Amino acid sequence: MSHQQALEELQALLGQDDLITDAAGKRPYETDGLAAIREVPWVVALPRTRDAVLGVLAICRRHRVPIVPRGAGTGLSGGARPMADGVLLSLARLKRILAIDVHNGIARVEPGVRNLAISEAVLPHGFFYAPDPSSQIACSIGGNVAENAGGVHCLKYGLTVHNVCGLVVATLDGQVHEFGGAGWDPLGLDLRAVTCGSEGLLGIVLEVVVRLTPLPPEKAVVLAAFSSLGDAGRAVAGIIRHGLIPAGLEMMDHLAIRAAEAFVHAGYPLDAEALLLCELDGTVGEVSADLARVEAVMREEGAFKLEVARDPQAQARLWLGRKAAFPAVGRLAPDYYCMDGTIPRGRLAEVLDEIARMSDEFGLKVANVFHAGDGNLHPLILYDANNPGELEKAERFGGRILSHCVAVGGAVSGEHGVGVEKLDQMCDQFSAAELAQFERLKAAFDPDGLLNPGKALPTLTRCVDVGGMHVHANSSARFTRLDRF
Amino acid sequence: MSHQQALEELQALLGQDDLITDAAGKRPYETDGLAAIREVPWVVALPRTRDAVLGVLAICRRHRVPIVPRGAGTGLSGGARPMADGVLLSLARLKRILAIDVHNGIARVEPGVRNLAISEAVLPHGFFYAPDPSSQIACSIGGNVAENAGGVHCLKYGLTVHNVCGLVVATLDGQVHEFGGAGWDPLGLDLRAVTCGSEGLLGIVLEVVVRLTPLPPEKAVVLAAFSSLGDAGRAVAGIIRHGLIPAGLEMMDHLAIRAAEAFVHAGYPLDAEALLLCELDGTVGEVSADLARVEAVMREEGAFKLEVARDPQAQARLWLGRKAAFPAVGRLAPDYYCMDGTIPRGRLAEVLDEIARMSDEFGLKVANVFHAGDGNLHPLILYDANNPGELEKAERFGGRILSHCVAVGGAVSGEHGVGVEKLDQMCDQFSAAELAQFERLKAAFDPDGLLNPGKALPTLTRCVDVGGMHVHANSSARFTRLDRF
Repeated sequence: MSHQQALEELQALLGQDDLITDAAGKRPYETDGLAAIREVPWVVALPRTRDAVLGVLAICRRHRVPIVPRGAGTGLSGGARPMADGVLLSLARLKRILAIDVHNGIARVEPGVRNLAISEAVLPHGFFYAPDPSSQIACSIGGNVAENAGGVHCLKYGLTVHNVCGLVVATLDGQVHEFGGAGWDPLGLDLRAVTCGSEGLLGIVLEVVVRLTPLPPEKAVVLAAFSSLGDAGRAVAGIIRHGLIPAGLEMMDHLAIRAAEAFVHAGYPLDAEALLLCELDGTVGEVSADLARVEAVMREEGAFKLEVARDPQAQARLWLGRKAAFPAVGRLAPDYYCMDGTIPRGRLAEVLDEIARMSDEFGLKVANVFHAGDGNLHPLILYDANNPGELEKAERFGGRILSHCVAVGGAVSGEHGVGVEKLDQMCDQFSAAELAQFERLKAAFDPDGLLNPGKALPTLTRCVDVGGMHVHANSSARFTRLDRF
Repeated sequence: MSHQQALEELQALLGQDDLITDAAGKRPYETDGLAAIREVPWVVALPRTRDAVLGVLAICRRHRVPIVPRGAGTGLSGGARPMADGVLLSLARLKRILAIDVHNGIARVEPGVRNLAISEAVLPHGFFYAPDPSSQIACSIGGNVAENAGGVHCLKYGLTVHNVCGLVVATLDGQVHEFGGAGWDPLGLDLRAVTCGSEGLLGIVLEVVVRLTPLPPEKAVVLAAFSSLGDAGRAVAGIIRHGLIPAGLEMMDHLAIRAAEAFVHAGYPLDAEALLLCELDGTVGEVSADLARVEAVMREEGAFKLEVARDPQAQARLWLGRKAAFPAVGRLAPDYYCMDGTIPRGRLAEVLDEIARMSDEFGLKVANVFHAGDGNLHPLILYDANNPGELEKAERFGGRILSHCVAVGGAVSGEHGVGVEKLDQMCDQFSAAELAQFERLKAAFDPDGLLNPGKALPTLTRCVDVGGMHVHANSSARFTRLDRF
């Protein structure tokens, strides 16, 4: 590495407006949404054009300087944690909406465009962009691609990977590739999906072609109250089993219900042990028909209260508590740790029981607010960082929850990515051979390992150290995930 | 290579029932669905177990013998064309349905299971497996994964890649990997999608976890007759623009209509220049509501005849002509060449006009029968192989059609894959840097290049020879596909 030389070249390329080198200016970039993990970057580059991005990559490659790409910095797993000897490459200033093609239902945007800005731009044409992470006001589409972001509506409309049909990606060798295109079927090897969720390890996203979804003409929201988590879990499984695909299907437990109600007064039933919010959308006829079936399933599984909202105001009120649930839970304790794991939908009740048992064991409260429909848990572990050892206890508790997710056939990350937070859990989830395969693929894009090193993929040494690595003489005998059903 | 040594080891591993070495026995395997291209394989291996497959891979790796994997051999682009010095590895005998999990809406099957056999097995549970290539009676799920197979229902339900949530894949180093899982969001790098459509270049699929789709309670089929291809094309765009997503949306032109009607008497209007078949499914209310909107759009765009079938018998009659269209067109001329390309939906009418113009230029008739809703054309070029030079003329005509698809922003393959048929067109579609990236990715899985060599990815030398390669000093300036809108 020759940082001095690189610095001079970056200054010549970007000028002082687009390169931050002073400590005060760099401070806002020291962390992303995983605030516990901080590092001040060597410099922050804020290019405004594609050519400037390519220039930064060329300089970094020439001088072997690592690059950490960053979208809006809302990620929750530390994927954009800076490096003290690396360029933090912000894509925030590439924020043009380049084209909207209503005829084919697609839009072409730069990576810094905010998620919600896409929906706002296409609203007059009767479309929206479906994936809706909670951070959608702030987060950028480039970051969404890097983390394969989800959201409430992913149950029906899919994750980022299902809503991106084309990507323009720069690799470190200075080449610009098009993965996918405007059409439905990718030609050649499909490098879109492997880029979605690759956490900046493979290339820098320069443009995204997103699929737009027609705004549904009608919506309805159902709130259902249950006297046990098991009943609510069975209602979720029942809805899916009956072939219904709600636009959203969210669950909250007793602690989350009380916290939300105390905070925003959404009118939630305080005597419920579990609450389901189910959004249905489609044509008027479709919503009415689905509504009747959803209500029947919920009653059958023991819902003791049902409330249906068909007008936008009433719907907004029902969603209010869910949307405010994280800050509401935040009022119950000085700190909380938001987990993110997935499980097969059929195991919901059992896993929630196990989390409750562990809560007693660790002596830390947990509130559960999550995407029940796709089995994506978000347990919020409450703790007080001022009590010595309590942060560490919360982290251990969180790790145990994720290991349990894996044990029942799920995964350690639902939609928040691996970043630096879940490197150890990756050792649980994958065999040495599988991790080596990931590394070979990474090297096929970035042989020098300059793009976001240390994120998303644990080293084998680390896995051996944490004791989670399964190394088998005959790896064909081991199927932890797919053999479970 | 040491073929003699390899042969002895294969015989010891498989026995004479599972290894074909005699000329007569190998003959049925000399071609797949692209019958014009033939080669007798060195040997045919028909392993019955996963361990036997791994054994074949180990022997081939040890002796540097190439491997051509084969499903049911129904592929249309020569992806399973054998090699005279290679093992043809049939996965047809791995055909167990391993598990059906109704609760999570998934099934785990071996690669040799037929596409339709999955739907039949899950029918009693109220599900089906949505991707439905025309060959679904015969084709296998392993082959579907290799070619990322589509079908009539892909418009609504997606291609194979959208309906596979997990894969067990053996790489040539003897490792067995799990890509994806039973859940929705893949963890680590998403290697499912890059495997789907990789035409056997990366690994051997040992198991597939497919997503099951609930059987829709109601269906309707609309037939609409138009007096021009342009009107029908605008109706297709209108339906999509109105936010309707039919289960299928197929177009036939005048020649195809007449051929089908003469063959099966489906009751198609012979005075139509273009015909649309639109299938709607969902709840009763949804289908009725969508039907009214589809009929309105079709009338608005000039449909002069509309017929709606709501009972299964009437629906089967309307579909009969479409399903028989290929053999029906086959009665018009001694031979036909089935093309497969995609275009943006908005360019349908214009591209069909251009194909008609080229038909006059080449002096060869074309019938068009295709998946209009997803812009996937299947022009059938009629010719007579007994007329000297006519096959070559048909191939040139076909090549021109595909180049035109690329020129308007489409792709040279919709759902039939590249195989050996479209290697030259790949040079049109991708830059040298992009093809080199594909090669690096291939090498990350199969560094020795033993898996299906010569398929799917053209060599750069070949591209330079055919004159289709774009090599630019500044590749960032070139965006043939994504910049088009």
